[in-house]
Amino acid sequence: MAPLQSWLAIPPTSDFSLSNIPFGIITSRNSRDQKRPAVAIGDHVLDLLAFSQAEGFSGLASIEKHIDVFAQPTLNAFAALGRPVHKEVREYLQQVFLEDGNFASILKDNEELRTNALLKKEDTKTHLPMQIGDYTDFFAGINHAFNVGTMFRGPANALQPNYTHLPVGYHGRASSVVVSGTPIRRPNGQILLDPTVDPKIPIFGPCRRLDIELELGCFLCKSNTIGEPVKIAEADQHIFGYVLMNDWSARDIQTWEYVPLGPFNAKNFGTSISAWVVLVDALEPFRAAKLPNETKVLPHLQEKTEDTVYDISLEIDLTTPDGATTTISRTSGKNLLWSFPQMIAHHGSGGCPMSVGDLLGSGTISGKSEKGGDLGSMLEMSWGGKKDIMLAGMDTRKFLKDGDVVTIRGVSGGDGERVGFGVCEGQITSAVKFDL
Amino acid sequence: MAPLQSWLAIPPTSDFSLSNIPFGIITSRNSRDQKRPAVAIGDHVLDLLAFSQAEGFSGLASIEKHIDVFAQPTLNAFAALGRPVHKEVREYLQQVFLEDGNFASILKDNEELRTNALLKKEDTKTHLPMQIGDYTDFFAGINHAFNVGTMFRGPANALQPNYTHLPVGYHGRASSVVVSGTPIRRPNGQILLDPTVDPKIPIFGPCRRLDIELELGCFLCKSNTIGEPVKIAEADQHIFGYVLMNDWSARDIQTWEYVPLGPFNAKNFGTSISAWVVLVDALEPFRAAKLPNETKVLPHLQEKTEDTVYDISLEIDLTTPDGATTTISRTSGKNLLWSFPQMIAHHGSGGCPMSVGDLLGSGTISGKSEKGGDLGSMLEMSWGGKKDIMLAGMDTRKFLKDGDVVTIRGVSGGDGERVGFGVCEGQITSAVKFDL
Repeated sequence: MAPLQSWLAIPPTSDFSLSNIPFGIITSRNSRDQKRPAVAIGDHVLDLLAFSQAEGFSGLASIEKHIDVFAQPTLNAFAALGRPVHKEVREYLQQVFLEDGNFASILKDNEELRTNALLKKEDTKTHLPMQIGDYTDFFAGINHAFNVGTMFRGPANALQPNYTHLPVGYHGRASSVVVSGTPIRRPNGQILLDPTVDPKIPIFGPCRRLDIELELGCFLCKSNTIGEPVKIAEADQHIFGYVLMNDWSARDIQTWEYVPLGPFNAKNFGTSISAWVVLVDALEPFRAAKLPNETKVLPHLQEKTEDTVYDISLEIDLTTPDGATTTISRTSGKNLLWSFPQMIAHHGSGGCPMSVGDLLGSGTISGKSEKGGDLGSMLEMSWGGKKDIMLAGMDTRKFLKDGDVVTIRGVSGGDGERVGFGVCEGQITSAVKFDL
Repeated sequence: MAPLQSWLAIPPTSDFSLSNIPFGIITSRNSRDQKRPAVAIGDHVLDLLAFSQAEGFSGLASIEKHIDVFAQPTLNAFAALGRPVHKEVREYLQQVFLEDGNFASILKDNEELRTNALLKKEDTKTHLPMQIGDYTDFFAGINHAFNVGTMFRGPANALQPNYTHLPVGYHGRASSVVVSGTPIRRPNGQILLDPTVDPKIPIFGPCRRLDIELELGCFLCKSNTIGEPVKIAEADQHIFGYVLMNDWSARDIQTWEYVPLGPFNAKNFGTSISAWVVLVDALEPFRAAKLPNETKVLPHLQEKTEDTVYDISLEIDLTTPDGATTTISRTSGKNLLWSFPQMIAHHGSGGCPMSVGDLLGSGTISGKSEKGGDLGSMLEMSWGGKKDIMLAGMDTRKFLKDGDVVTIRGVSGGDGERVGFGVCEGQITSAVKFDL
């Protein structure tokens, strides 16, 4: 199928082709700093409040009674309308932008509306797309789990016995999720400098092993009541869409604090997500098989097909303070043992209530090529800080330095019809000087 | 000092004496199901929306410009006004109810206002007092940590090396916090029936080791910006007040799932809290010393005094389906190694943003008497399910059965001037029959 053509000039390398139509929250000069829903299209964004107020949705009768969802400062109300509505709205907007679309005249032939609603991306600012009630981070990237387990326990015991039976996860910190572009301050924390000395006495100071975790994030669009599980066959209908995620991690703080209740301050100082939520429907053509699981999973986690993850090309760029950029990883969204529907079914299996706007993280996504180059964390790239990660310009890293910028990208599909996520980016700023 | 006397008949054994004045959220027939703030006083509650609308706060000029906080469905807006305002409002309401209070005539002599605003407790229903953004559960009860650690690793290694250096905690599930009185459904989950068989294959089914955890909960009234720590000297100003908490726990699910990232579905099916938030000021007379810590803690966790926990008498009643009630534990809020200000300072030390309405749990509170009888979980009382907990009427338990009701109570002070929490109660209902 040839790429969809628009009357609007969309660069062929844009993540936001007509095949995508991702949703986000913006402010602009027009909006007088009032946050509002928008979709990204090429180098532009369509302000959905301005568009809806000018009868832009007049061709889509079914959305009319819900039109106030576009007057909200988050996407939660729109998400709560459910998957069938997201599909209708996305396809309608495609018809608005298509060269000979059924509803092209609504915008193409209305200069005033174009001026008010179709904004240059650089004239807008993106914000967190959802009001996040709870955030859960999983550990579904088996290559990452294996690598980290190998460092701590050797390859024979790298994976815990539960790993292939359930998607291991933990509750994250919803308040610490920030949108791409937000600076990340290096945390202070308790660190055990030499674990071989007894008694073990930590110091308090800036994290020395600040790391990234390349993940996919998933926003929910459907709630379940407390005590009521979510069935695996219905879990897909709970998914609004996907974002890129960088679950910044303070490895030295984590090593000292995490027994026996899991990571805490090592993770809750900031988690970045990309600004645009790519709808499930947009990713449908890129379904791919999960990594094989030799364990026969219990019935409540069994899916009807194996192609329940996505072939998304992922990469991590590291830009040092001198401006040199190195792509330190290229991997794929396929590198997961568990799909998001399985994570949701497991999460709800005991009756935990989930809500519209909840965020789930996949866990770190690493490949397992022999040469490396497809790993999702610096902990793995430097093998626990034992070797240098080579950067452009003779520079090296084991972990992040102040001023470093990490940019994660993700895209499916080829030129002219890319379904991409834009960037998930953050720059490290120096730790607070602790003054008691 | 003699107990404060009111013109309103307050039973001397009431948790809600004039010395208390705890805040909550109610609905009543008067409120037409609109949630609104209230205070509990003896067998009555004062509807603060009705009271404020009828100029009940006319004697307190400073609250007038904030009066809309009493028209909110949660206490968050009131809490956000800060500790000095909570103190003023509490002291003002004491003067409204005091026999010869400065503002007694406002209510005592206004029959219409009494009819509209002063309701019998039994004619009202309580709701979650706060909109909870994030919920964190700590592990500050050292006797509990020692007991559980002993079961798993023996007494020599019961406590992890970090335990006395920082208040260990994990992120809980905010959406699963429910108000006292809400039934708790027994969760289904993955359970490893026999850990000695290899390979380890779990079953999926109803939890067989459903437990309680007696805790104190703490609501925050002040936010910190991401990246900005909270100093220990200022942490106290972040505390709105306290509630009782029962962090229901599925021990068999927990044992299988918790490595390496901590408890997840074992905890997220429900956490109960008492309905009335006891303000910090009300507990001030009952300050007590924390348990001694032989470790010299790092400066960011050092408090100026040791009396930063509270002498609160706590007890757990278990009522079996036949109606027989046994008090299975009597302990004290003093049994903590870490205070809530220390938990807050640790939580914020890496820059984690906390918000008004966040809930912190102390972790399970157990004593260490030789006879037992002061333990905060059935896991400890039955020593890992190895011995029976004796109940009234020849009945026994190791863990909870369907239909059991658990009632936690907490009170400081003597008759006529009790500062109590009311109850934190929940009844176990049977697990969902899983139908795929």
